[in-house]
This record gives sequence, C-alpha cells and structure tokens, in this order.
Amino acid sequence: MTASLCVLGAGLIGGSLLRAAAAAGWETFGYNRSEIPAGADGFDVGTDLPAVLRRAAAADALVVLAVPMPALDAVLAQVAAHAPGCALTDVVSVKAPVAAAVRAHGLAAGFVGGHPMAGTAESGWAATDAALFRGAAWAVTVDDGTDPAVWRRVARLALDCGARVVPVTSAEHDAAVARVSHLPHVLAEALAQAGAAGGALALGLAAGSFRDGTRVAGTAPDLVRAICEPNAEALRAVLDETLAVLAEARRTLDDGSLAALAEAGHAARRRYDEQHREVVSGVVPGAPGWLETLRAAGRRGAVLTALD
Amino acid sequence: MTASLCVLGAGLIGGSLLRAAAAAGWETFGYNRSEIPAGADGFDVGTDLPAVLRRAAAADALVVLAVPMPALDAVLAQVAAHAPGCALTDVVSVKAPVAAAVRAHGLAAGFVGGHPMAGTAESGWAATDAALFRGAAWAVTVDDGTDPAVWRRVARLALDCGARVVPVTSAEHDAAVARVSHLPHVLAEALAQAGAAGGALALGLAAGSFRDGTRVAGTAPDLVRAICEPNAEALRAVLDETLAVLAEARRTLDDGSLAALAEAGHAARRRYDEQHREVVSGVVPGAPGWLETLRAAGRRGAVLTALD
Repeated sequence: MTASLCVLGAGLIGGSLLRAAAAAGWETFGYNRSEIPAGADGFDVGTDLPAVLRRAAAADALVVLAVPMPALDAVLAQVAAHAPGCALTDVVSVKAPVAAAVRAHGLAAGFVGGHPMAGTAESGWAATDAALFRGAAWAVTVDDGTDPAVWRRVARLALDCGARVVPVTSAEHDAAVARVSHLPHVLAEALAQAGAAGGALALGLAAGSFRDGTRVAGTAPDLVRAICEPNAEALRAVLDETLAVLAEARRTLDDGSLAALAEAGHAARRRYDEQHREVVSGVVPGAPGWLETLRAAGRRGAVLTALD
Repeated sequence: MTASLCVLGAGLIGGSLLRAAAAAGWETFGYNRSEIPAGADGFDVGTDLPAVLRRAAAADALVVLAVPMPALDAVLAQVAAHAPGCALTDVVSVKAPVAAAVRAHGLAAGFVGGHPMAGTAESGWAATDAALFRGAAWAVTVDDGTDPAVWRRVARLALDCGARVVPVTSAEHDAAVARVSHLPHVLAEALAQAGAAGGALALGLAAGSFRDGTRVAGTAPDLVRAICEPNAEALRAVLDETLAVLAEARRTLDDGSLAALAEAGHAARRRYDEQHREVVSGVVPGAPGWLETLRAAGRRGAVLTALD
C-alpha cells in the first residue's frame, strides 16, 4: 500500500516536505490557507481545510501540521472535527507548546512531534526544495505515551526525506533549540543593529563575519517571532547565560583582553566541527524500554539512519 | 617601470596579496618569520628581514606590513633601520594603533594605512588565494598629513587586487570595524559556548543558523585576540550598545515578545542587503581639499573603483 501524506501548510517547510515525500514515493496532498502555484508543479494543495482533512481520514494519511505556531490552534480544531483518528505529526519549531495544543484538542494519542532542522531565510512555495532535508537532523519526539506505530511512520517520513532521526523528548528539544536555533536569531538581530548604527561607512566595510553573523536577521520578523516566542522560557534561560558570558568578556576587555572568551569559544566551535554522529540501530518501537533507549541515544548525539 | 611590492608576513592576507599583486603584474617579494612553501609556488619569500628590507630600499618598493599586531613593533624597528625611505602601508585589522606604532618609529611621512576586508577562518600560506580580495572593500586611510603619492600607490595596489577602495580616517575605520568585524567575533564566540553547553544533543540539532553564526569562532584564538584586542576601546563601546539591546530583548521576553528586536534587526539587515555603492571619481590626490572630499565620500559609503 502506498503511504499517504497530508501536509497542512505549504510554506517553505511544508511545501518542501510535499516535494521530498512525493519524490520518495508517498502519495501526497495538502492544504494551504491561500492559493499557491503548487498545482502548476503537479501538487494537489487545496484551500478547503475540512475537505482536505476528510480526504486524509479516508486515506488514513499521516497528517503533518506545517503552519506557524499562531495558526496552530485553529487548524487543530479542524483536525479534531474531521480527521481525529489520523496519525499526526508536526514540523513546527518548538515541541512542548505544540504537544500541549494537540492535547488540548484531544489528539494526543495519535501524535508524535517532529522538527526538521533545515530552512533558509526565504519563505513560501517559491522557495521549496525537495532536497531541503537531505542530511539534516530531524527531531522526532519520544515523550511518555508515544504510540510506536505512529512513531515508526513519522521516522519513516523523515528518513524518506533524506534526514537523520534524532530521538528527543519535547522538553529537551526545546531547551536545545533555544541554544542552537533561537539564540542565533536573537544575536543576529542584535548584530545587524550594531552594524547599521555605524551607518553607510560601517555597512560598506562589512565582510564575511558580519554577513554570516546576520544572515538569519533576513528572516521575516513575524516568522522569527513565531519560531522563538513560543519557546520564550528556554530562550530566556540561555540568553541570561549568554549575557553573563558577554558581560564577563566586557569586563576582561577593560584590561584589553579577550583571551578567555576566544579560547572557550574556539574550543566550543571545534567540539561542534568534530562531533561524531553515532548511528543507533536495533531499537524496535514498542519493545520494552524503547523510549528510554532512544532518549539516551539522543542525549549522546546519536541518530537513526534506518528503521529495522 | 614595473611597480615593486615587498610584503612582510606571508600568512593568509600577506600571502594572498603576493599572489594577487603578482597576477596583476607587480614585481613581488617578501619576508616570513619561518620558512614556508612559497618558493614551490614561484614566490620569493625570505626569512632574513634586514636583507629583504635592503632589497626593498634598493627597488623603491611599496612595503606592506602583514604581520599580526603583536609582531608589528619588532618589524617596524627593522624597517626604520633598513628601508626608512620606502612607501609603507599595512593590512593589519586596526588602524589607529598601527599608525601610532609607525609614528613611534619615525616612519609616518611615508605611511598610508590599509585594510582589505577579506579573510577566512583559515590561516597560513596554504590558505592563500589570489582572488581573496576580488570585490572586497579595502580601507585606505585619509588621515591628516597623508602623502598623496603614497596614497596613490596604496590605492593602486588595492585596485590591482580587484578590491574597491574605501577612503576613511583611522579613527572612523576602527569604530566601524568594531561594529562589523570585531563584534561578530565576540558574538560568535559566545554563541558557540551556548551551543556546546547544551551537549551532544544540542550540537547534533544545530543547523545553518548556528553554523553560520559561529563560523568565525573557528579562527585561532590568538588571531582573534590579535585582531580585536588592539581595538578594545571601540569594541567596548559597541559591546555596551549591544548588551543594552540584548538586555532590552530579554526584558520583552518576560512578556513573551521579541517584536521590537526582530523588527529592528530585520530592518538593519535589509539596509545592509540593499546598500547602494556610490562610485567616486575625479578626485586627484594632492589637489586642494582631496582628503576632506574622500573622507566625506567614505562616510556616505562611497568607493573608488579606479584612479583618474
């Protein structure tokens, strides 16, 4: 039987998911709030959400929530009304708030959270790319009560899109992405402001370090807010940590030194460059202790590259 | 007559300068503290500094200081001893401290500061590239007392390497690069630490925003210090500014909002992306008011792409 996939929201991530899954042999269809030129590319993306969801229910499709966080509640209400029995996942940045919203709509039993760590500063259907997820990490949640059959379908989707599966709890995911995704946004926005405050002369002298350091400040502000604000608590914690590191660097600069900051930062970047990705295998979803085994694997940076 | 160029220090910048200038038809030679495989590539780079400088004096070469700031004083003492009459420039990051050191060695009359805004996280001869400066901004100083003939030779070198000349005073240069070069280093070092503090899980989930935001933390710590520390005063000022922006963002996060930060950061990055590079022409070095004209042009982001 061909696996069926229903993607709700055909922006950069949802649209790229339609392309990648279709290329991997999934039967795909979806919904977008407005008309988009997906049809011109051979994709079936409608604007009638109830109709799309009734089709998903009939096809026993895996339904993917791919709308920004602020739109999630309204979409979940429709899922609960028209496709409550479908396996459900998401590609929204933050995981605990999505899981809470899913729970509030009575859809927790069939839900497994997901987050492909891929994107560009572009957005919308025009920016979609079937290769977007190739080689990327794709977080798949392993919270208590996870249905092994749904987990397997979500992991299969991630693998079929060319990604490596990182098993992680929602809470641990959110703390981690505050560090490696949301904080980079905050620092990029601040750096861009510091550069522009120097006027045309400073911007004219800007080279690679400024360009790369501010790249994600090119993301639309509403999208940055939709990504970061639902994770405000974890982001506050890591921002406090970073403010302390910067305040200490500021203090050592009084003596003209950046030694401690440069040494620690370089060591940290090397750890990132040299990280070894252990591959986990032999874990059978549903077998005793499977969730604990996967959580432990995720914590040591391991990934799944296949399902047994 | 073929223009002659003597480069002191054949690391990434100095070595790339040898390559670029040679490709543009300059007669090139240089000095490096240790033996490097430059000879294998056909470049004449010796380790006997007095001998290299005597050759520079005999050839009336333009001498380029391309050693890190901590090594500058010792090299300048040798220049003063063996080639005091040569036209002199530099490719060190910060300008006012270099000008002060040059002055201290009695070499100010023949000196015009320079700073090509190009580089990578790599270093050493192996990383050199004749195309490194192509399309880059190259700051050339226009401080009071600048010798127009030397200025012309330095600007010619920058243009021959494929760069655009940004005329700027030493003080204004240092304030600007604190914003667009040194602050990016500081934030990258802090971001790398925040990511690594999340352990293997966080680093495993890191994608483009973390990779780009921490790229320059891959630079050797000693080099980061040599670049940033001589500009400690300007860096402190812009770091204070940025700490205030981040503290305010932290405050708005208490209400769950990043609206102000994201809007201002996005507008700033757009200003960078959309900057128009006015091209200045018709300025004759040495003509009345030439320094003031060039300073004003640099302040509005204008560049020279040719010498009249």
